[in-house]
Amino acid sequence: MAHGDGLKVVGKRVSRLNGPDIVTGRVAYADDIQLPGMLYGRMLRSPHAHARIRRMDLSKARALSGVVDVVCAQDVPELSIFPSEEVCYEGQKVAAVAAVDPDIAEDALELIEVDYETLPPVIDPAAAIHPDAPEAQVGVPTEEVTDSEGRRLRNVASYQVIEEGDVERGFAESDAIFEAEYRAPYFHQTYLEPTSATARVEPNGRITVWKSGQGTFTIREDLASALKVAEGRVRVIMTETGGSFGAKNRLILEAQTALLAMRTGRPVKVTMNREEEFLDGRPAPGCWVRLKTGARKDGMLMAVEGRIVWDGGIEGRGGASNRLLGPYKIPNVMLEGFAARTNKPTPGAYRAPGGPQTAVARESNIDMVARELGIDPVEIRLMNGLGAGDYAPSGAPLQHDWLRDTIRKAAETVRWGRRRLKRNQGMGIAVGDWQNASGQTNAFVTMAADGSVSVVTGQVDITGLHTVMAQIVAEELGVPVEKVTVTLGDTDTVPYTSLSAGSKAAYSAGTAARKAALEARERLLRLAAERLEVAPEDLAIADGRVEVVGSPEHTVGVDELAGMAIDSEEGPISGRGVLNRIPTYPTYSVEVATVEVDTGTGQVRLIDLVAAQDVGRALNPMLVEGQMQGGAVQSISFGLMEGYRYDDEGRVLNPNLLDYAIPTALDVPNIKTVLVEDPCELGPYGAKGVGEPPIIPGAAAVANAIYDAVGARVTEMPMTPERVVAALRD
Amino acid sequence: MAHGDGLKVVGKRVSRLNGPDIVTGRVAYADDIQLPGMLYGRMLRSPHAHARIRRMDLSKARALSGVVDVVCAQDVPELSIFPSEEVCYEGQKVAAVAAVDPDIAEDALELIEVDYETLPPVIDPAAAIHPDAPEAQVGVPTEEVTDSEGRRLRNVASYQVIEEGDVERGFAESDAIFEAEYRAPYFHQTYLEPTSATARVEPNGRITVWKSGQGTFTIREDLASALKVAEGRVRVIMTETGGSFGAKNRLILEAQTALLAMRTGRPVKVTMNREEEFLDGRPAPGCWVRLKTGARKDGMLMAVEGRIVWDGGIEGRGGASNRLLGPYKIPNVMLEGFAARTNKPTPGAYRAPGGPQTAVARESNIDMVARELGIDPVEIRLMNGLGAGDYAPSGAPLQHDWLRDTIRKAAETVRWGRRRLKRNQGMGIAVGDWQNASGQTNAFVTMAADGSVSVVTGQVDITGLHTVMAQIVAEELGVPVEKVTVTLGDTDTVPYTSLSAGSKAAYSAGTAARKAALEARERLLRLAAERLEVAPEDLAIADGRVEVVGSPEHTVGVDELAGMAIDSEEGPISGRGVLNRIPTYPTYSVEVATVEVDTGTGQVRLIDLVAAQDVGRALNPMLVEGQMQGGAVQSISFGLMEGYRYDDEGRVLNPNLLDYAIPTALDVPNIKTVLVEDPCELGPYGAKGVGEPPIIPGAAAVANAIYDAVGARVTEMPMTPERVVAALRD
Repeated sequence: MAHGDGLKVVGKRVSRLNGPDIVTGRVAYADDIQLPGMLYGRMLRSPHAHARIRRMDLSKARALSGVVDVVCAQDVPELSIFPSEEVCYEGQKVAAVAAVDPDIAEDALELIEVDYETLPPVIDPAAAIHPDAPEAQVGVPTEEVTDSEGRRLRNVASYQVIEEGDVERGFAESDAIFEAEYRAPYFHQTYLEPTSATARVEPNGRITVWKSGQGTFTIREDLASALKVAEGRVRVIMTETGGSFGAKNRLILEAQTALLAMRTGRPVKVTMNREEEFLDGRPAPGCWVRLKTGARKDGMLMAVEGRIVWDGGIEGRGGASNRLLGPYKIPNVMLEGFAARTNKPTPGAYRAPGGPQTAVARESNIDMVARELGIDPVEIRLMNGLGAGDYAPSGAPLQHDWLRDTIRKAAETVRWGRRRLKRNQGMGIAVGDWQNASGQTNAFVTMAADGSVSVVTGQVDITGLHTVMAQIVAEELGVPVEKVTVTLGDTDTVPYTSLSAGSKAAYSAGTAARKAALEARERLLRLAAERLEVAPEDLAIADGRVEVVGSPEHTVGVDELAGMAIDSEEGPISGRGVLNRIPTYPTYSVEVATVEVDTGTGQVRLIDLVAAQDVGRALNPMLVEGQMQGGAVQSISFGLMEGYRYDDEGRVLNPNLLDYAIPTALDVPNIKTVLVEDPCELGPYGAKGVGEPPIIPGAAAVANAIYDAVGARVTEMPMTPERVVAALRD
Repeated sequence: MAHGDGLKVVGKRVSRLNGPDIVTGRVAYADDIQLPGMLYGRMLRSPHAHARIRRMDLSKARALSGVVDVVCAQDVPELSIFPSEEVCYEGQKVAAVAAVDPDIAEDALELIEVDYETLPPVIDPAAAIHPDAPEAQVGVPTEEVTDSEGRRLRNVASYQVIEEGDVERGFAESDAIFEAEYRAPYFHQTYLEPTSATARVEPNGRITVWKSGQGTFTIREDLASALKVAEGRVRVIMTETGGSFGAKNRLILEAQTALLAMRTGRPVKVTMNREEEFLDGRPAPGCWVRLKTGARKDGMLMAVEGRIVWDGGIEGRGGASNRLLGPYKIPNVMLEGFAARTNKPTPGAYRAPGGPQTAVARESNIDMVARELGIDPVEIRLMNGLGAGDYAPSGAPLQHDWLRDTIRKAAETVRWGRRRLKRNQGMGIAVGDWQNASGQTNAFVTMAADGSVSVVTGQVDITGLHTVMAQIVAEELGVPVEKVTVTLGDTDTVPYTSLSAGSKAAYSAGTAARKAALEARERLLRLAAERLEVAPEDLAIADGRVEVVGSPEHTVGVDELAGMAIDSEEGPISGRGVLNRIPTYPTYSVEVATVEVDTGTGQVRLIDLVAAQDVGRALNPMLVEGQMQGGAVQSISFGLMEGYRYDDEGRVLNPNLLDYAIPTALDVPNIKTVLVEDPCELGPYGAKGVGEPPIIPGAAAVANAIYDAVGARVTEMPMTPERVVAALRD
């Protein structure tokens, strides 16, 4: 078993194995699937944020030549995949058409007649819960929560309270208190690849669905549930994912696509356009936050009190407030969390869900009390941050100083306090905390007679997971990584596998790959021991050969052993790793932004950004840096550019990439990544999950840098020039 | 573990799971593969059976618009996939073209100029080895064998002798001796699906090949060797096979297809037409046999002496003579086996390779000595046949009377000796012996939360193998077979798997499936034991539930356990079976034909055929019967209709399905199948391999029936009216 510093493949900058396929356009994405006799589906979508459906007439659409099927709620009363009486957000699917070509399907949409009676929309989450607000969906049950005057709040889908110590006493003991309101809008994962699904009903009645995403089995569960069929009747095959960031974790249009295939008996493909992605994808939720933070003059945080109202879309998803605490020891806490129903699509996951939105409030407040107390922002975070001897939010004792190490490395790298800044330039630091998930995963390893190795896993490859698995297998079996091929299984070919999400893919599937490889390795060593007439313990694997330790001239090729195994009684070398959850650790990201603010126009120029991250061990530093760069860009983008805008009727004003700004290469500054490697005990080779943390603190760091530069505290995301100018005026 | 008569799914008539896909035309065969940017390849083929290539000019073909590549030997001197100096059979691939459409590729072939100098062809295998025969391939090394006059034989690619006892003494002690010469022509497997391959070079340089056949790994080995690349650089994915019968076991056009893809950088598909199948497939070899058989007046066989010259095609494949012995105890043996090189394509495997050809000679001779001695043909076979207390050809002691049981059941079924036949009608019996193979195989089982089961195997599904695997897994896990899905892995996703050939697929992969299912079952029972608070030994699985034996009200659903497992620490239920060879047993087929011969025209009408087979245990009687029906038809067809015919220049006169006759439904009589079930010890549930034996004795039974009807012994296959008339005249 390979350990520590003797690593030969793990920890190296191995290029993503399918990188050439991706950059040469040879990867087949979901929309590239072509099946004989395939139909094209399109969705009729609500033009209103909230309306009653008075009448629908599909007859003209059905009569159009080339249209094979048109379906709405009344055709499938047993399913709940179309609304029958009320539309609750703009873009909601009202009916679906399947036709022999996509243009005919599009034309047919225009022939569907729907008579709507508009209803008042609920758009702002803070306003949504007001006792006088209209209902986002008429008559849907909500939580019983009342305001201070005892009036029942509206549209509250969930409500929770976190209370520790005594906040009143905490604030009484504080020497500096800062309180502010923060807002973040809905924002979108803006993956390159639009959502696409293709469904086919097999002659035996089973349904096969091709799509991209982050986990086949989750989609299978959801589809089986939406279509009211047994899971075993559904097969989900995942194509390469052209970006998802959490959005494609769950159903978007798969149930409607499969329904069209079931009704027509022909394969059906549906691909969304960019407007549909904005209107009916699974974007990140916005929120409204009021947060009050108190600290003693020595810098110790004494109390946090606050309320967060998540913009939960039509299903009222969310409600957690714990992320407002961050990685700090705070003795007195009182936090209320709400999920408000609004007339928007149900939000989905977006990389560290809730992380960036809450970091802005928390890290802004900490900076403000630090400044009031005259304490350095780095210092106050070092002082209050969790470290060795403390307990993680999970309750597990911490044995490392991961957070402080990461803050210090970030500060060192940026020469915190020693860098000379010009007028209207400023520097801000912010901290993000996370803990990677873990879940069902698997890896199967086998070795061919030429020593090449095949790995099969149900864990979807996002951001290079399969490359990392290949590295791990290559490491343990002593072969070059080029000889390892990793193939994604589907729901028919591998055991239940959880989502590649929650920063857990490399952590969990990497562990499964290592387990499978070690089983194969053990067999290799047994074969070599027989051949070389020594004990397996006396053998080592290096450079494609097994050799006797201390006597390297006694050696046999791994390929030769693999060939022998194929003809041996036990059969080919193989190894299996089938796992469930394994313990995980907290992990930290720290970003320092340097900005220049044009006090006339409010324009913020991000000069540079340092992103430091506590990664345990970087299994592939190049891929980890890629994650950090990508996450930092998304965080900056959330902070400075992104966000849905609505008109008074609740219609999205910017559902396209012209009006919804995301950074181009010119908008992104130099990002310097700093890997902080202090291996954890149970991750593969000491690694921690790395995908989500880098998106958390960037926007908060920029907000603190703006304040440092010009003394303006911007509390609403994105921090557009208008808002900066307004903050300067305050 | 399910045993014996308590079986609920194994042994039942379960319809082939993908039957509906096949009969509704929804299965994707190799030629259905479509890849973006794909080119179409065609092969230029030799019009001569034997010729020297003086000059080739590809320039005009290369200049044709739409042609992307033209390649011949001189372009790839490092490979041996095109001849550079000499063509050795009609239809041999001389050059390959890739073009944007198949018509342009075809046109380009006509623009390739080849200047040939014809050489004398070698067609008849008996003549081929004559010392004065021309060489089939100039200067190729052959075995050193001389004739009785000491002259060196020609074109002998292999030579072997089997000698036991003293044949001279054996014949001296015989009371009846019969000697004859037999001939069989080349004949073709005439699968419905023509050979097709599609190849693509991936951006990382690996080569993916889609094709149908009987084993992915064998094709990978052959391709890697032909293209001189490492095996790990090749991925072979097998589509549903529309018939193969051994022909598609090895390369036919895959190397040339892959070469075109490698040279052009684009996917290339090549599909053969029927003429190409005949000229350059891998048909069954013909042979020439001289066989002398002696028996004592009590019926005991005393001696066999003979010589077989296999028509080994240009590579001189074959040479074995052991099958001339059959399943009989014969004390004195002298057999010579030759493989002759001839100007024909290299023969391949065809269901029980060599079985039908040798059975005709052996079973005819036995019938003739029986008749001379006045002993019943059934009796002489029972008397001399191997049974309990004897040793199998493998040397293993036999503990069953499988052969005699099968002969008796066949004779009983046909009312042997008691059936009244009309004038010119006759009945003939013949026996075939075989021993199924075994080899590397695997199965991986996993269970979903709804109790549905997925099985993955590298073992290609021919004749319902995957259905049988599903039955076995369903049996052990107590679920209905409809809840089991079997998926074929490819060379990237499963361990090395041997061919689905040699009657071994259900025997070996069935054992692997059972092993995998038992591992999953063990886990199921452990989970149930925890849940029901009893020991696993006290539990039984029935109808989707695990129950406490003797207390069936204490029960838990298999689906519930599977769901629990997914969330448990050990993770989802899975099981693995990775195997190599396991011991196998001899197996027997006995066929009885009833014919009527028109003595004027020589026309033979097959009235009926009884096919009995020693199957150990029929895992799925319907599929076993299907195998027996199919094999019997092919055997009759070999005996009465099939065979390549050649002109004097060695060109095939009938390379198409108009001139090469195979039976239509009207040509096939009623075939009655008799399953003889006496389980063997080590096969799954006592099963033996069943695929090949039924093709062995049919033609021999017909030959014996013709003799019984009209006293004419036809010794050359097929037994056409002309040959029957000629035999009647002798």
